[in-house]
Amino acid sequence: MKSVVIFSGGMDSATALYRECEDRWTADGASGVLALSFDYGQRHRKELEFASALCKSIGIEHAVVDLRSLASLLPGNALTGDVPVPHGHYAAPTMIKTVVPNRNAIMLSVAFAVAAANGATRVVTGVHAGDHAIYPDCRPEFVETFALMESLSLSGVAMVELVTPFVRVTKTDIVREGHRLGVPWASTWSCYEGGELHCGQCGTCVERREAFRDAGVVDPTEYAV
Amino acid sequence: MKSVVIFSGGMDSATALYRECEDRWTADGASGVLALSFDYGQRHRKELEFASALCKSIGIEHAVVDLRSLASLLPGNALTGDVPVPHGHYAAPTMIKTVVPNRNAIMLSVAFAVAAANGATRVVTGVHAGDHAIYPDCRPEFVETFALMESLSLSGVAMVELVTPFVRVTKTDIVREGHRLGVPWASTWSCYEGGELHCGQCGTCVERREAFRDAGVVDPTEYAV
Repeated sequence: MKSVVIFSGGMDSATALYRECEDRWTADGASGVLALSFDYGQRHRKELEFASALCKSIGIEHAVVDLRSLASLLPGNALTGDVPVPHGHYAAPTMIKTVVPNRNAIMLSVAFAVAAANGATRVVTGVHAGDHAIYPDCRPEFVETFALMESLSLSGVAMVELVTPFVRVTKTDIVREGHRLGVPWASTWSCYEGGELHCGQCGTCVERREAFRDAGVVDPTEYAV
Repeated sequence: MKSVVIFSGGMDSATALYRECEDRWTADGASGVLALSFDYGQRHRKELEFASALCKSIGIEHAVVDLRSLASLLPGNALTGDVPVPHGHYAAPTMIKTVVPNRNAIMLSVAFAVAAANGATRVVTGVHAGDHAIYPDCRPEFVETFALMESLSLSGVAMVELVTPFVRVTKTDIVREGHRLGVPWASTWSCYEGGELHCGQCGTCVERREAFRDAGVVDPTEYAV
């Protein structure tokens, strides 16, 4: 194994995954890349089905880490609890309800363990600049300190690099990059509501629409509203 | 909730738990302390039963986070895999097989999430000086950097302190402290083998015996050998 890519089934991590497969491509295809998803009891569990289907379609190994036992210990947020998903702009203060505290630290810690145990040297995450306003665990100072922490945690055990291609990149530019790489957008899922269609009103739907529009790329998503 | 204590069911974390309850004691008893254990498919799952029984006996809230789906993704170590548990001294090089890579980073990340989501301000772990030789994720530089990483991860969300009372303390002195606090040693479990009795030969049994002997405290443990 060469890389572990944290893959939610959304646009950003799909683009990170395609980028990592492009970098790592071998005669055998994208061998050596493991896409890792997390089931933390999220309301939008549908993203996991999208993640699994996309990996299958491009022949990439995919694993889901089951963290559902955590959900009952994390009350008060809209992604795992019974708090309603707020509507509006992704960067609005009301979106604080969509913060699952420490989510990236947990997912990255698990990814580093899996990488270290399997001889992989890279952990890839698609955190991006648009996340910074609301999610502290997507900011450059967080990812830099996290990487330092891991170098100490795995000292003498393994050397694993934290790769964050989009930490200073906007979602609009991610759409441009994904377009270049041929990411099948219709096979990605963003909506926090997890309904039949993308709701079109939650923060991540609003952000998804904006990014396609601003990038000048056709948005194949069918929105409910 | 005031504190989350990572509690394996062993001697060190039992002493850390008793210490935290002493510090935090209120008219209601040890209210506000949550003991958090992890089921990562460890061979010595028996420690979880000991953890649960001890918490029940002293009226402390206890939760087990189920990480068993991780075990198959972490091959090659003696605690979760089919590699035999090495016998000998805890600090011997052969004990490298008992390293579950990044285990403390994973458990601490989860504990910080639970603390943040429940208004607790302290996460307590019983890592100690005797762990340093083999386990990089028990060393002072690791815990210090981990705490810094968390302050960034939870910036604007919560303020949670990492409390490591034994990070520069030997296991012998932990036994002395636990003796003072009245820790019921017979209700703690150390052995990595997880058999009927403590095996008396694995690294953690050897260390347990040594610590009691060096502290001059009666060891109530029944060892198989």
